[in-house]
Amino acid sequence: MKFANVERNGVSSVVIANEGKIVPLGALTRWLANGTTLPTTTDQLLKSPEQLAAIRDAWDRLGPDRSRFESKNQTEIRFLPAILNPGKLICIGLNYKKHAEETNMPLPKQPVVFSKFSDSVAAHHDIIPYPAETKQLDYEAELAIVIGRTASNVSEEEALDYVFGYCCANDLSARDLQMRSGQWLLGKTGDGFAPLGPYIATVDEIPDPDALRISASVNGKTVQDSNTSDMIFSCRAIIAYLSKHFTLRPGDVILTGTPEGVVLGQPESDRIWLKPGDEMTISIEGLGELTNTVGE
Amino acid sequence: MKFANVERNGVSSVVIANEGKIVPLGALTRWLANGTTLPTTTDQLLKSPEQLAAIRDAWDRLGPDRSRFESKNQTEIRFLPAILNPGKLICIGLNYKKHAEETNMPLPKQPVVFSKFSDSVAAHHDIIPYPAETKQLDYEAELAIVIGRTASNVSEEEALDYVFGYCCANDLSARDLQMRSGQWLLGKTGDGFAPLGPYIATVDEIPDPDALRISASVNGKTVQDSNTSDMIFSCRAIIAYLSKHFTLRPGDVILTGTPEGVVLGQPESDRIWLKPGDEMTISIEGLGELTNTVGE
Repeated sequence: MKFANVERNGVSSVVIANEGKIVPLGALTRWLANGTTLPTTTDQLLKSPEQLAAIRDAWDRLGPDRSRFESKNQTEIRFLPAILNPGKLICIGLNYKKHAEETNMPLPKQPVVFSKFSDSVAAHHDIIPYPAETKQLDYEAELAIVIGRTASNVSEEEALDYVFGYCCANDLSARDLQMRSGQWLLGKTGDGFAPLGPYIATVDEIPDPDALRISASVNGKTVQDSNTSDMIFSCRAIIAYLSKHFTLRPGDVILTGTPEGVVLGQPESDRIWLKPGDEMTISIEGLGELTNTVGE
Repeated sequence: MKFANVERNGVSSVVIANEGKIVPLGALTRWLANGTTLPTTTDQLLKSPEQLAAIRDAWDRLGPDRSRFESKNQTEIRFLPAILNPGKLICIGLNYKKHAEETNMPLPKQPVVFSKFSDSVAAHHDIIPYPAETKQLDYEAELAIVIGRTASNVSEEEALDYVFGYCCANDLSARDLQMRSGQWLLGKTGDGFAPLGPYIATVDEIPDPDALRISASVNGKTVQDSNTSDMIFSCRAIIAYLSKHFTLRPGDVILTGTPEGVVLGQPESDRIWLKPGDEMTISIEGLGELTNTVGE
C-alpha cells in the first residue's frame, strides 16, 4: 500500500495513494473492527504493525468500492512530508559507481555516512527557500528507506525485515557550504533541504529495492537517469552496516545516495546551478514523482 | 535556576537543583496561581516562557522554605538526560585553539559543523556501552548551549537572547570510526555518545559563557583543564553563524567544541584510549559535574 500525509482545510491526516488518486483512511471505517483507531500521521502508522494489518485487511474488503471514496477536489489537498518527523535522517554519500566517478572520488570501501537534521524535511510541491549563503545549489535524486522496526546489529540477510517502506527523496546540497569545512552537514541541512514523498510505499510493493529506475529532471529536462542496481552498497548492506554502529528505530529514514548527473558532476565550465523558479522532479519506479520548486 | 530531568519509582519529572540538593517542582504548588500546569520534562519547560516565569516567581516566594522540600533519599533518584529529545544535536569541531594545535589541524576560519543523532543522548551516571566496532574511544568535555527561542539569521549581539540555558556535555568519539570516511558522524553518534547534564542552568545563571573553567577527568585524574575563553568562535558567534544557514528552534542543543587534553591529542605512543570500567567526569564552572562510566 501507499500512504501519504496530507492537509486539507487545516486538518492533517493519512491518505492512501491508489492509482494516482487519493482515498482518505475514513473510507475504511465500516470495514474496521470496532475500537480500531486510525493513525493521523505516517509517523504513527509505521510504529503500529497492528494498525497497518487492520488497514490492509479493510482495504482488501473495500475492493472495487475504492474508487467511490476518491477525493474529488484534489487541488484542495496539500501534501505534507511523507514522514513528518524522522527520528534520524541518515545519508549515504558516493554510493553510485558512476556518481563517485563523475566527482573524481575513489569508490568507497565502506559506506560514507553523514546526516541532515530531521527538521529539514519538506513535502511534495513545497517551495524550497533559496539559501542566502550559497551560490551552488544542487539536486540529488535518492531512494529513501523508512525503518519500521528497531534494528541493532542485524545481518544483511534479515535487513529488509526492518523496513517499513520506501519513498523518493531529494538530497538538496549547497556545494560551496558542503565543501567549506570538510564536514558536509552545513551544505546538506538548509531549511527544506530534504523533500520526502509524495508517499511511502510499503515494503511488499517493492520486491527488490536494488533494481529500481531512478531519475531526476529540472524544468522538464532529464538530468539523472540510472538504476539503484548501480549502488555500491545495497539497501541490505547499508542497513546492516549502520545497525552495527548505532540503533536504528522506527521512523528513521536513510537516503541511499544519488546516481550520476548532478550539477557538481559536470565539467566546471558547464555547471548550471539551481536558481529561483527551477522545478525539480525526482522519479523512482513504483514510488511516484516528487516535485519541488526553488524559491527566492 | 537549574533544572534536571529525573526518574523516581518509574515516574519522570523535572526537579530544581539547589546547592547540591534536589527540590521537586511540586514544592512550588501552593505558590503557583490556580491553573498553572507544571512541565514533566525540561523539553516542555524550555518551550514555555510563561511556565518558567511562574516557576521562578514561586521559587522566589518559597525562599528559605526550600530546604524543607529537598528530596531525602537522593539515591532513589535516577538522572535522565538534561534534555530528553533535542530537536537537533549540533556539534562544533576544533573550536579551542590549543585543541586544534594538539591535533595538528589548522585553526578553522569558520566554525566546523557536524552532528550527533538526537537519540544518542545519555544521562548523568549512565553507563555508556562500549561499541564493538571501535578500538579508539575518546572523551571530550564540552559546554552545551540549549536554544530557547526560534532563531533565524540573528546577529552576534542578540544571539544570547535565544538561549534557554547551558549544561555539561561529553562528546564521546570513536576516533577510528570518526576518521574512516572523512565524515565524522559514524564515530560521533554511537548509542549513548552524548551525555548531557546533570542539569541545565538557565541563561541568567551564566553571565558570560565564554569565560568558564572547563575540565575532564578519567578515573579521578585530570586530563582536560581549560577555559571557554580559549574558544575560537564564541557562543554568540556560533549561534549567529548557524542561524544564517538553518533555523534554530527551542530544544536544539549545540556542543561548542572541546579543549586540549583528549586522547587523540597525545603523541601516538602515549595514547591510552578509554576502556570498559573507566569513569569520566566533565566539570564546568556553574554547571556541575557530569559523570559516566564506560560499559562492556
